[in-house]
Amino acid sequence: MEQIPFQDYYPDHMAHCYGCGRLNEFGHQIKSLWDDKNPDESVAYFTPKSHHTAIPGYVYGGLLASLIDCHGTGTAAAAAYREAGRSMDTEPALRFLTGSLHVDYLKPTPMGPTLEIRGKVKEVKGRKVVIEEWIVVNGVITVRGEVVAVQVPDQLVQELLDNAGK
Amino acid sequence: MEQIPFQDYYPDHMAHCYGCGRLNEFGHQIKSLWDDKNPDESVAYFTPKSHHTAIPGYVYGGLLASLIDCHGTGTAAAAAYREAGRSMDTEPALRFLTGSLHVDYLKPTPMGPTLEIRGKVKEVKGRKVVIEEWIVVNGVITVRGEVVAVQVPDQLVQELLDNAGK
Repeated sequence: MEQIPFQDYYPDHMAHCYGCGRLNEFGHQIKSLWDDKNPDESVAYFTPKSHHTAIPGYVYGGLLASLIDCHGTGTAAAAAYREAGRSMDTEPALRFLTGSLHVDYLKPTPMGPTLEIRGKVKEVKGRKVVIEEWIVVNGVITVRGEVVAVQVPDQLVQELLDNAGK
Repeated sequence: MEQIPFQDYYPDHMAHCYGCGRLNEFGHQIKSLWDDKNPDESVAYFTPKSHHTAIPGYVYGGLLASLIDCHGTGTAAAAAYREAGRSMDTEPALRFLTGSLHVDYLKPTPMGPTLEIRGKVKEVKGRKVVIEEWIVVNGVITVRGEVVAVQVPDQLVQELLDNAGK
Protein backbone atom coordinates (compact mmCIF):
# COMPACT_ATOMS: atom_id res chain seq x y z
CA MET A 1 0.00 0.00 0.00
CA GLU A 2 1.42 3.34 -0.92
CA GLN A 3 2.26 5.48 2.09
CA ILE A 4 0.79 8.90 2.67
CA PRO A 5 3.36 11.44 3.91
CA PHE A 6 3.14 12.09 7.66
CA GLN A 7 2.43 15.78 7.09
CA ASP A 8 -0.53 15.06 4.84
CA TYR A 9 -2.34 13.63 7.87
CA TYR A 10 -2.02 16.91 9.78
CA PRO A 11 -5.38 18.65 10.21
CA ASP A 12 -5.75 22.07 8.60
CA HIS A 13 -4.87 23.97 11.78
CA MET A 14 -1.50 22.17 11.91
CA ALA A 15 -0.85 22.45 8.16
CA HIS A 16 0.37 26.05 7.86
CA CYS A 17 3.94 25.41 9.02
CA TYR A 18 6.51 27.14 6.83
CA GLY A 19 8.66 24.02 6.87
CA CYS A 20 6.11 21.30 6.23
CA GLY A 21 2.57 22.63 6.01
CA ARG A 22 0.76 21.56 2.85
CA LEU A 23 -1.32 24.76 3.12
CA ASN A 24 1.65 27.16 3.27
CA GLU A 25 2.13 28.13 -0.34
CA PHE A 26 5.37 30.01 0.44
CA GLY A 27 6.89 27.24 2.55
CA HIS A 28 9.06 24.19 1.97
CA GLN A 29 6.22 21.64 2.17
CA ILE A 30 8.53 18.77 3.06
CA LYS A 31 7.05 15.29 2.99
CA SER A 32 8.29 12.56 5.30
CA LEU A 33 7.72 8.82 4.99
CA TRP A 34 8.94 5.63 6.59
CA ASP A 35 11.70 4.15 4.47
CA ASP A 36 10.26 1.05 2.78
CA LYS A 37 13.66 -0.65 2.81
CA ASN A 38 14.44 0.26 6.39
CA PRO A 39 11.19 0.86 8.27
CA ASP A 40 13.00 1.99 11.43
CA GLU A 41 14.01 5.08 9.57
CA SER A 42 12.03 7.93 8.08
CA VAL A 43 13.13 9.86 5.05
CA ALA A 44 12.33 13.13 3.29
CA TYR A 45 13.83 14.71 0.21
CA PHE A 46 14.35 18.37 -0.45
CA THR A 47 16.10 20.31 -3.19
CA PRO A 48 17.21 23.71 -1.92
CA LYS A 49 16.53 26.74 -4.08
CA SER A 50 19.51 28.63 -5.44
CA HIS A 51 18.98 31.50 -2.98
CA HIS A 52 19.22 29.17 0.04
CA THR A 53 22.90 30.02 0.13
CA ALA A 54 25.47 29.97 2.93
CA ILE A 55 28.50 30.89 0.88
CA PRO A 56 28.04 30.58 -2.89
CA GLY A 57 27.78 26.89 -3.84
CA TYR A 58 26.74 25.66 -0.38
CA VAL A 59 23.43 25.31 1.43
CA TYR A 60 22.42 27.69 4.21
CA GLY A 61 22.64 26.18 7.68
CA GLY A 62 19.35 27.71 8.77
CA LEU A 63 17.53 25.80 6.04
CA LEU A 64 19.24 22.57 7.09
CA ALA A 65 18.13 23.24 10.68
CA SER A 66 14.57 23.79 9.43
CA LEU A 67 14.58 20.47 7.58
CA ILE A 68 15.85 18.68 10.70
CA ASP A 69 13.14 20.41 12.74
CA CYS A 70 10.13 19.53 10.57
CA HIS A 71 11.25 16.05 9.60
CA GLY A 72 11.88 15.40 13.30
CA THR A 73 8.49 16.46 14.60
CA GLY A 74 6.80 14.61 11.73
CA THR A 75 8.74 11.45 12.53
CA ALA A 76 7.90 11.82 16.23
CA ALA A 77 4.18 12.01 15.47
CA ALA A 78 4.32 9.08 13.06
CA ALA A 79 6.27 7.03 15.60
CA ALA A 80 3.71 7.75 18.32
CA TYR A 81 0.85 6.56 16.12
CA ARG A 82 2.84 3.52 15.02
CA GLU A 83 3.65 2.67 18.65
CA ALA A 84 -0.09 2.83 19.37
CA GLY A 85 -0.83 0.64 16.36
CA ARG A 86 -2.97 3.37 14.86
CA SER A 87 -3.24 5.23 11.58
CA MET A 88 -2.35 8.93 11.75
CA ASP A 89 -5.90 9.96 10.92
CA THR A 90 -7.46 8.32 13.97
CA GLU A 91 -8.54 9.96 17.22
CA PRO A 92 -7.43 10.97 19.76
CA ALA A 93 -4.96 13.15 17.91
CA LEU A 94 -1.28 12.95 18.85
CA ARG A 95 0.27 16.38 18.22
CA PHE A 96 3.94 17.24 18.60
CA LEU A 97 5.76 20.56 18.77
CA THR A 98 9.52 21.11 18.83
CA GLY A 99 10.96 21.39 22.33
CA SER A 100 14.56 21.65 21.27
CA LEU A 101 16.70 21.32 18.20
CA HIS A 102 20.39 20.54 17.88
CA VAL A 103 22.36 20.58 14.64
CA ASP A 104 26.00 19.69 14.01
CA TYR A 105 27.36 20.92 10.70
CA LEU A 106 29.95 18.26 9.89
CA LYS A 107 30.96 19.64 6.53
CA PRO A 108 29.65 22.13 3.99
CA THR A 109 26.52 20.89 2.17
CA PRO A 110 26.91 21.38 -1.58
CA MET A 111 24.17 23.27 -3.40
CA GLY A 112 22.46 21.54 -6.30
CA PRO A 113 21.74 17.90 -5.45
CA THR A 114 18.58 16.78 -3.69
CA LEU A 115 19.15 16.36 0.03
CA GLU A 116 18.06 13.19 1.82
CA ILE A 117 16.93 13.88 5.38
CA ARG A 118 16.78 10.75 7.51
CA GLY A 119 15.40 10.21 11.00
CA LYS A 120 15.15 7.52 13.63
CA VAL A 121 13.53 7.35 17.05
CA LYS A 122 16.33 7.53 19.62
CA GLU A 123 14.33 7.65 22.82
CA VAL A 124 10.83 8.06 24.20
CA LYS A 125 10.64 9.78 27.61
CA GLY A 126 7.05 10.36 28.66
CA ARG A 127 5.64 13.05 26.41
CA LYS A 128 9.05 13.64 24.81
CA VAL A 129 10.22 11.80 21.74
CA VAL A 130 13.86 12.23 20.73
CA ILE A 131 14.55 11.84 17.03
CA GLU A 132 18.09 11.56 15.72
CA GLU A 133 18.60 12.73 12.18
CA TRP A 134 21.17 13.14 9.46
CA ILE A 135 21.32 14.71 6.03
CA VAL A 136 22.94 12.89 3.14
CA VAL A 137 24.04 14.50 -0.08
CA ASN A 138 25.88 12.66 -2.84
CA GLY A 139 26.19 9.72 -0.42
CA VAL A 140 27.96 11.79 2.25
CA ILE A 141 26.54 12.78 5.64
CA THR A 142 27.07 16.53 5.97
CA VAL A 143 24.77 17.27 8.92
CA ARG A 144 23.68 15.44 12.06
CA GLY A 145 20.86 16.66 14.23
CA GLU A 146 18.49 15.87 17.02
CA VAL A 147 14.98 17.04 17.78
CA VAL A 148 13.21 16.69 21.09
CA ALA A 149 9.55 16.71 20.10
CA VAL A 150 6.99 17.26 22.83
CA GLN A 151 3.51 15.85 22.67
CA VAL A 152 0.93 18.53 23.40
CA PRO A 153 -2.79 18.00 23.99
CA ASP A 154 -4.85 19.08 21.02
CA GLN A 155 -6.74 21.29 23.44
CA LEU A 156 -3.55 23.25 24.18
CA VAL A 157 -3.03 23.73 20.45
CA GLN A 158 -6.60 25.01 20.23
CA GLU A 159 -6.00 27.42 23.13
CA LEU A 160 -2.86 28.74 21.43
CA LEU A 161 -4.81 29.27 18.23
CA ASP A 162 -7.62 31.01 20.13
CA ASN A 163 -5.13 33.28 21.92
CA ALA A 164 -3.12 34.21 18.81
CA GLY A 165 -2.94 37.96 18.30
CA LYS A 166 -4.44 38.72 21.72
CA MET B 1 30.11 57.10 16.32
CA GLU B 2 27.33 55.20 14.66
CA GLN B 3 27.99 51.49 14.43
CA ILE B 4 28.02 49.60 11.16
CA PRO B 5 26.24 46.22 11.39
CA PHE B 6 28.64 43.28 11.65
CA GLN B 7 27.28 41.75 8.45
CA ASP B 8 27.96 44.90 6.44
CA TYR B 9 31.69 44.30 6.97
CA TYR B 10 31.51 40.88 5.32
CA PRO B 11 33.28 40.81 1.95
CA ASP B 12 31.14 40.06 -1.10
CA HIS B 13 31.98 36.34 -1.10
CA MET B 14 30.61 36.03 2.45
CA ALA B 15 27.57 38.24 1.81
CA HIS B 16 25.22 35.84 0.02
CA CYS B 17 23.95 34.06 3.12
CA TYR B 18 20.18 33.58 3.11
CA GLY B 19 20.04 34.60 6.76
CA CYS B 20 22.27 37.64 6.82
CA GLY B 21 23.89 38.37 3.46
CA ARG B 22 23.34 41.91 2.26
CA LEU B 23 23.63 40.61 -1.33
CA ASN B 24 20.91 37.94 -0.98
CA GLU B 25 17.81 39.71 -2.21
CA PHE B 26 15.55 36.81 -1.19
CA GLY B 27 17.05 36.41 2.29
CA HIS B 28 16.44 37.80 5.75
CA GLN B 29 19.36 40.28 5.69
CA ILE B 30 19.56 40.45 9.46
CA LYS B 31 21.80 43.18 10.91
CA SER B 32 23.60 42.69 14.21
CA LEU B 33 25.19 45.36 16.39
CA TRP B 34 26.69 45.67 19.85
CA ASP B 35 24.09 47.00 22.24
CA ASP B 36 25.06 50.60 23.05
CA LYS B 37 23.59 50.31 26.53
CA ASN B 38 25.12 46.92 27.25
CA PRO B 39 28.21 46.47 25.11
CA ASP B 40 28.76 42.89 26.27
CA GLU B 41 25.65 41.95 24.33
CA SER B 42 24.84 42.07 20.64
CA VAL B 43 21.39 42.65 19.31
CA ALA B 44 19.46 42.25 16.06
CA TYR B 45 15.84 42.88 15.21
CA PHE B 46 13.66 40.96 12.82
CA THR B 47 9.98 41.07 11.98
CA PRO B 48 8.82 37.70 10.62
CA LYS B 49 6.67 37.69 7.52
CA SER B 50 3.13 36.39 7.84
CA HIS B 51 4.02 33.15 6.06
CA HIS B 52 6.79 32.30 8.57
CA THR B 53 4.16 30.33 10.45
CA ALA B 54 4.41 27.40 12.87
CA ILE B 55 0.74 27.13 13.75
CA PRO B 56 -1.35 30.16 12.79
CA GLY B 57 -0.40 33.14 14.99
CA TYR B 58 3.03 31.83 15.97
CA VAL B 59 6.48 32.02 14.44
CA TYR B 60 8.07 29.03 12.74
CA GLY B 61 10.85 27.41 14.78
CA GLY B 62 13.08 26.98 11.76
CA LEU B 63 13.13 30.74 11.23
CA LEU B 64 13.97 31.27 14.90
CA ALA B 65 16.83 28.78 14.54
CA SER B 66 18.06 30.68 11.48
CA LEU B 67 18.08 33.96 13.39
CA ILE B 68 20.04 32.34 16.23
CA ASP B 69 22.48 30.91 13.67
CA CYS B 70 23.29 34.11 11.78
CA HIS B 71 23.25 36.44 14.76
CA GLY B 72 25.57 33.99 16.50
CA THR B 73 28.21 33.74 13.79
CA GLY B 74 28.07 37.51 13.29
CA THR B 75 28.57 38.09 17.00
CA ALA B 76 31.44 35.58 17.06
CA ALA B 77 33.24 37.42 14.25
CA ALA B 78 32.65 40.82 15.85
CA ALA B 79 33.90 39.51 19.20
CA ALA B 80 37.07 38.13 17.61
CA TYR B 81 37.88 41.49 16.03
CA ARG B 82 37.05 43.32 19.23
CA GLU B 83 39.28 40.95 21.22
CA ALA B 84 42.09 41.77 18.79
CA GLY B 85 41.36 45.49 19.13
CA ARG B 86 40.69 45.73 15.42
CA SER B 87 37.97 47.05 13.16
CA MET B 88 36.08 44.38 11.19
CA ASP B 89 37.39 45.73 7.88
CA THR B 90 41.07 45.14 8.71
CA GLU B 91 43.31 42.27 7.59
CA PRO B 92 43.93 39.46 8.22
CA ALA B 93 40.26 38.50 7.92
CA LEU B 94 38.61 36.56 10.75
CA ARG B 95 35.92 34.36 9.21
CA PHE B 96 33.48 32.18 11.13
CA LEU B 97 31.16 29.38 10.05
CA THR B 98 28.60 27.59 12.19
CA GLY B 99 29.92 24.40 13.77
CA SER B 100 26.81 23.61 15.76
CA LEU B 101 23.52 25.15 16.69
CA HIS B 102 21.26 24.44 19.63
CA VAL B 103 17.81 25.96 20.17
CA ASP B 104 15.41 25.54 23.09
CA TYR B 105 11.85 26.61 22.37
CA LEU B 106 10.67 27.78 25.78
CA LYS B 107 7.25 28.95 24.67
CA PRO B 108 5.45 29.75 21.44
CA THR B 109 6.71 32.97 19.81
CA PRO B 110 3.76 35.17 18.82
CA MET B 111 3.55 36.37 15.23
CA GLY B 112 3.38 40.12 14.65
CA PRO B 113 5.79 41.97 16.92
CA THR B 114 9.42 42.60 16.00
CA LEU B 115 11.70 40.00 17.56
CA GLU B 116 14.80 41.05 19.47
CA ILE B 117 17.65 38.56 19.09
CA ARG B 118 20.36 38.98 21.70
CA GLY B 119 23.79 37.38 21.95
CA LYS B 120 26.73 37.22 24.32
CA VAL B 121 30.11 35.53 24.16
CA LYS B 122 29.99 32.54 26.49
CA GLU B 123 33.35 30.97 25.83
CA VAL B 124 36.36 31.11 23.53
CA LYS B 125 38.10 27.75 22.99
CA GLY B 126 40.88 28.05 20.42
CA ARG B 127 39.24 28.55 17.05
CA LYS B 128 35.77 28.01 18.53
CA VAL B 129 33.66 30.83 19.90
CA VAL B 130 30.50 29.90 21.79
CA ILE B 131 27.72 32.48 21.67
CA GLU B 132 24.71 32.21 23.95
CA GLU B 133 21.57 33.81 22.62
CA TRP B 134 17.97 34.50 23.41
CA ILE B 135 14.98 35.93 21.59
CA VAL B 136 12.69 38.43 23.27
CA VAL B 137 9.21 39.32 22.11
CA ASN B 138 6.91 41.67 24.00
CA GLY B 139 9.42 41.60 26.86
CA VAL B 140 9.32 37.80 27.20
CA ILE B 141 12.11 35.37 26.35
CA THR B 142 10.56 32.69 24.13
CA VAL B 143 13.72 31.05 22.78
CA ARG B 144 17.21 30.33 24.06
CA GLY B 145 20.00 29.16 21.82
CA GLU B 146 23.67 28.56 21.46
CA VAL B 147 25.96 28.67 18.47
CA VAL B 148 29.44 27.22 18.30
CA ALA B 149 31.11 29.30 15.60
CA VAL B 150 34.37 28.03 14.16
CA GLN B 151 37.03 30.32 12.77
CA VAL B 152 38.12 29.19 9.34
CA PRO B 153 41.08 30.49 7.37
CA ASP B 154 40.02 32.73 4.52
CA GLN B 155 42.02 30.41 2.27
CA LEU B 156 39.72 27.51 3.19
CA VAL B 157 36.71 29.65 2.32
CA GLN B 158 38.34 30.41 -1.03
CA GLU B 159 38.97 26.70 -1.64
CA LEU B 160 35.33 25.91 -0.86
CA LEU B 161 34.22 28.60 -3.30
CA ASP B 162 36.62 27.31 -5.95
CA ASN B 163 35.36 23.73 -5.48
CA ALA B 164 31.65 24.59 -5.51
CA GLY B 165 29.76 22.65 -8.15
CA LYS B 166 32.71 20.36 -8.92
